Amino acid sequence: MEPSIATFKKICPYLKRSTPSALRSLSTQPARTATASNGLVHMAQQCPVMGKAMTLQANAHCPVSGAGAAAQQSVRHFSSSPVAANPSKSTVLSYAKAASPSDMKASVQHELHQASPATGAACPFKPAAATASTIPVSHTKADAPYDYEALYASEIEKKHQDKSYRFFNNINRLAGQFPRAHTAKAEEEVTVWCSNDYLGMSKHPVVVETMRATLSKYGAGAGGTRNIAGNGALHLGLESELASLHRKPAALVFSSCYVANDATLSTMASKMPGCVILSDAMNHASMIQGIRHSGCKKMIFRHNDTQHLESLLQTLDPATPKIIAFETVYSMSGTIGKVEEICRLAKKYGAITFLDEVHSVGMYGPHGAGVAEHLDFEANMNRPADDLRMKTIMDEVDIISGTLGKAFGVVGGYIAGSANFVDMIRSYAPGFIFTTSLPPSIVAGAKASIEYLRQSSVERQAQHINTRTLKDRLAHLDIPVVPNPSHIVPVLVGDAEVCKSASDQLLREHGIYVQSINYPTVPRGEERLRITPTPGHTEEMMEHLVQALESVWQRNNLKRTTEWKATGGRAGVVEGAVDPEPIWTDAQLGLPAKNAALGDIPAAATSARGGATAEL
Amino acid sequence: MEPSIATFKKICPYLKRSTPSALRSLSTQPARTATASNGLVHMAQQCPVMGKAMTLQANAHCPVSGAGAAAQQSVRHFSSSPVAANPSKSTVLSYAKAASPSDMKASVQHELHQASPATGAACPFKPAAATASTIPVSHTKADAPYDYEALYASEIEKKHQDKSYRFFNNINRLAGQFPRAHTAKAEEEVTVWCSNDYLGMSKHPVVVETMRATLSKYGAGAGGTRNIAGNGALHLGLESELASLHRKPAALVFSSCYVANDATLSTMASKMPGCVILSDAMNHASMIQGIRHSGCKKMIFRHNDTQHLESLLQTLDPATPKIIAFETVYSMSGTIGKVEEICRLAKKYGAITFLDEVHSVGMYGPHGAGVAEHLDFEANMNRPADDLRMKTIMDEVDIISGTLGKAFGVVGGYIAGSANFVDMIRSYAPGFIFTTSLPPSIVAGAKASIEYLRQSSVERQAQHINTRTLKDRLAHLDIPVVPNPSHIVPVLVGDAEVCKSASDQLLREHGIYVQSINYPTVPRGEERLRITPTPGHTEEMMEHLVQALESVWQRNNLKRTTEWKATGGRAGVVEGAVDPEPIWTDAQLGLPAKNAALGDIPAAATSARGGATAEL
Repeated sequence: MEPSIATFKKICPYLKRSTPSALRSLSTQPARTATASNGLVHMAQQCPVMGKAMTLQANAHCPVSGAGAAAQQSVRHFSSSPVAANPSKSTVLSYAKAASPSDMKASVQHELHQASPATGAACPFKPAAATASTIPVSHTKADAPYDYEALYASEIEKKHQDKSYRFFNNINRLAGQFPRAHTAKAEEEVTVWCSNDYLGMSKHPVVVETMRATLSKYGAGAGGTRNIAGNGALHLGLESELASLHRKPAALVFSSCYVANDATLSTMASKMPGCVILSDAMNHASMIQGIRHSGCKKMIFRHNDTQHLESLLQTLDPATPKIIAFETVYSMSGTIGKVEEICRLAKKYGAITFLDEVHSVGMYGPHGAGVAEHLDFEANMNRPADDLRMKTIMDEVDIISGTLGKAFGVVGGYIAGSANFVDMIRSYAPGFIFTTSLPPSIVAGAKASIEYLRQSSVERQAQHINTRTLKDRLAHLDIPVVPNPSHIVPVLVGDAEVCKSASDQLLREHGIYVQSINYPTVPRGEERLRITPTPGHTEEMMEHLVQALESVWQRNNLKRTTEWKATGGRAGVVEGAVDPEPIWTDAQLGLPAKNAALGDIPAAATSARGGATAEL
Repeated sequence: MEPSIATFKKICPYLKRSTPSALRSLSTQPARTATASNGLVHMAQQCPVMGKAMTLQANAHCPVSGAGAAAQQSVRHFSSSPVAANPSKSTVLSYAKAASPSDMKASVQHELHQASPATGAACPFKPAAATASTIPVSHTKADAPYDYEALYASEIEKKHQDKSYRFFNNINRLAGQFPRAHTAKAEEEVTVWCSNDYLGMSKHPVVVETMRATLSKYGAGAGGTRNIAGNGALHLGLESELASLHRKPAALVFSSCYVANDATLSTMASKMPGCVILSDAMNHASMIQGIRHSGCKKMIFRHNDTQHLESLLQTLDPATPKIIAFETVYSMSGTIGKVEEICRLAKKYGAITFLDEVHSVGMYGPHGAGVAEHLDFEANMNRPADDLRMKTIMDEVDIISGTLGKAFGVVGGYIAGSANFVDMIRSYAPGFIFTTSLPPSIVAGAKASIEYLRQSSVERQAQHINTRTLKDRLAHLDIPVVPNPSHIVPVLVGDAEVCKSASDQLLREHGIYVQSINYPTVPRGEERLRITPTPGHTEEMMEHLVQALESVWQRNNLKRTTEWKATGGRAGVVEGAVDPEPIWTDAQLGLPAKNAALGDIPAAATSARGGATAEL
């Protein structure tokens, strides 16, 4: 940072919140008026303090017009070269001298509330988040064109300012050494502890060999949309498999579950005039987008608060079409949606249910159909796949969406529901219709993975046993885990910069990759390390992880569970919170007694786990 | 169709436009009021003719209340069983008898314009397209819940009614016998003439072997979003390759180009308050969705009409942010966007350009970067890849979007543009952020394909030579082709049912797969068979195609080019239309003279084509 700007930033409450690059962008922006040399000067002219000072100065020296003419010529392209930046820098300094700090402060206090709405957009005393976005925008009649590059730069700068800018780690997961990966350097290996390849199916021989064979036979790409040359027996077969998995009459495959959720919710709701969508406050971005794109009325109910949901339902006319959109496993907290209660309310109030099982398909239920299947574990385990008469909770859910890219280990998304519902989405959703269909190898690999996981529970059990073990060990060390009954292990850090730093330390110093999860994926102040054990993580790997976390916690003096609880708590790590019972019971995991730790696993489960670890 | 309903449909102008299944859906819908037994009766009660007749009848017989109570119990599920349908059928018939046809007609004429807005939604005399969607909708206070299944059924019925219902053909393209495929029966083979795998790269050994090796090394799926465990060297490498291909500082890969267009346009425009998007009238659905989702003001300019575009630009304030969104090759007509002129206008009016090169990447330009590269063929052929100083038209385009799923033969989409622009989209677009990244094998295969096509023009040349040949042969037979300068061969049929029938005949009787393209992909009346030759189509295959088309044209008495022209023309097949010069010149194709036919190709080009056919 230039020292001169640094000095000035101490004086001005607006500049204090701005970064050098934002100022530089602003200063290279073309002039808005005849008396401003560039965007920064123009903005300063709006300032109740600087504006006056500059008018006095201009009357005395009139330094502006020459610089203004030069700035007019630099039309579109942002330049960071010293030459382009110089005029604005000198201008900044020249008006910095015009008022003393105490003058400015008094003047601000007095005039802060007098800014008119018209000038409010450019007012430097608005909250920091709003200022950057307003920098390059002008709706006033002017000759200068819009500065697109300055807008881009300022939007990125906002991300840096609020610490939500994302640096992607270069992680290359090795199929032969799961869950190991190499970094940007092929010889530098790390253990991955945050993948959504929950069961290691991405490297399962059944999946990989199916895909390799399909590649040879049917080639790399589908070559068209589903309607034009891109629909084959493999696509239809996968959809039959998915429908059967969820015991629904039909299913439909999309490029991703993001697309599935977005396209389905927006299409179905837009087909029902007057429709209201009731959406859990913690729903995934894809559902939020789908709801937004539908143009329908949205009611948000507090996360997992069925009383709140019912109170909202009671306000709606029985004849009004209503969709309740929720999830089973909420990916960042690990909480689980109240499927049974929500289905009951849906029936009572004439709503339909849209359930996102993205983080639970493959992982829950006797056949990996998800949490809805898991809730009637015994009944669903024993009934034949083609028995559509028996009704369990999963049969009460109207529409299920799921992914092929997490526990199933490949990529793609889908919905399952009634035949007419699925046919309507197939017939109307632009996000389904107007896009190249998934490659034959992808749909074949996904089908192989689903088929395998429908008959094998070894991987699910081993995953959930590893989850329990890790949660137990972290509890023992007083390292804070957001309590939940699922397979997610969210370790609370509570600060964006510290969380990223902890993640970096784990990677660089311990060879462990756990991505820091910051805003906007989680609320500010609830930043976390989201750990996802797999059946492939060995006891040695877990020992290493736990020691590394303890080391990072000590070194950075991170808050422990007891400290969070003593200071009011956060993100569910609060005094008096009871850890929810895991949704996988001891009996379902083949464990002999309640809350058995890993050491207590009977021979069968151990060998199952060992087998899974070895093979997967 | 039940004869009794058929008879009744002759009398009632509303029922005349409805299908039996729509009526059946309506009749199984629960009652809206105490006096209606079901949705059909309720709607009849709103009818100015039937309503009066039914009131008279009800006073005499009171047949409704019992049926109404029974219907109340059937809350949600659509049933097509005779038992459920019977009550409504008898109700329909009972009120059919209440008025004579002449009574009805007179009454309708009198009362048609007196329907209040409140009852207008259910008025049976609205246009046919509106009636089906209004069937299950009620905003009035009532006890009956919304009938979702009836809505789904009626939406599907609408598709059947307007002949836009899609039946997916089961086509399994065989890598080893490109461009052959098997149908639902593995032993039944056909030749595919409508795939977007334009160059056969989906089965190119470079692509397939790269993918097979990557599968073995890195597994089936990426395992996470780009931010969480799903970002590897292969993803970064593909983005570098794409940026270099388009000579832009940066590129970003998405699940598909549908997502790329939707996410990029909606995100960028929503970041610029007051932004106006100027959109070509024939833009792809993904761009239309992106524009819609941005919430910005949209101005549509007539297809490829730069005068119209300029007149719209002139109405906008210079300081207003503006995006001109257009395509190079418009996929269904084969027309080509005026890149140079639009870039000039963008510069003149301070707009930025968003150019969809989906159907041209891999296919045009000396390195397959698309039409923008093709426009300065020589200059771009000779300058080094890292020379960013020389400015050609492609350098004037601000943002390019493209696909990895058509000429590149795999799947996925991308954008390329300035570093800050791409970083902004990377940082803000939910459709990029919150989705599992493409599998390692996909990104590796796509990169291999691009690298290959950057240095090999044999496939492009052979494709365009085949296109010319086919267009020439069809012109010779007076079979109507929508004139265009690109690689698309749209054969005009002009009727939805006939077009589908022609496609079915080609498949069943000639073993040729060309999908019929109907509304909404093309306007009604412009239905076509969209043929896409590839370098893999042999002379024998083309001979077979041409003969089959001639046979189908004769058998169905389909209109010839001269007939279209004599009757006013359609979709560009009009009197006086001059066939545009192909964008690939003779010299670029290695042909000796202008308009050389296939027989005139010199030895080098023939061997290139032969080589491509043999290898690809």
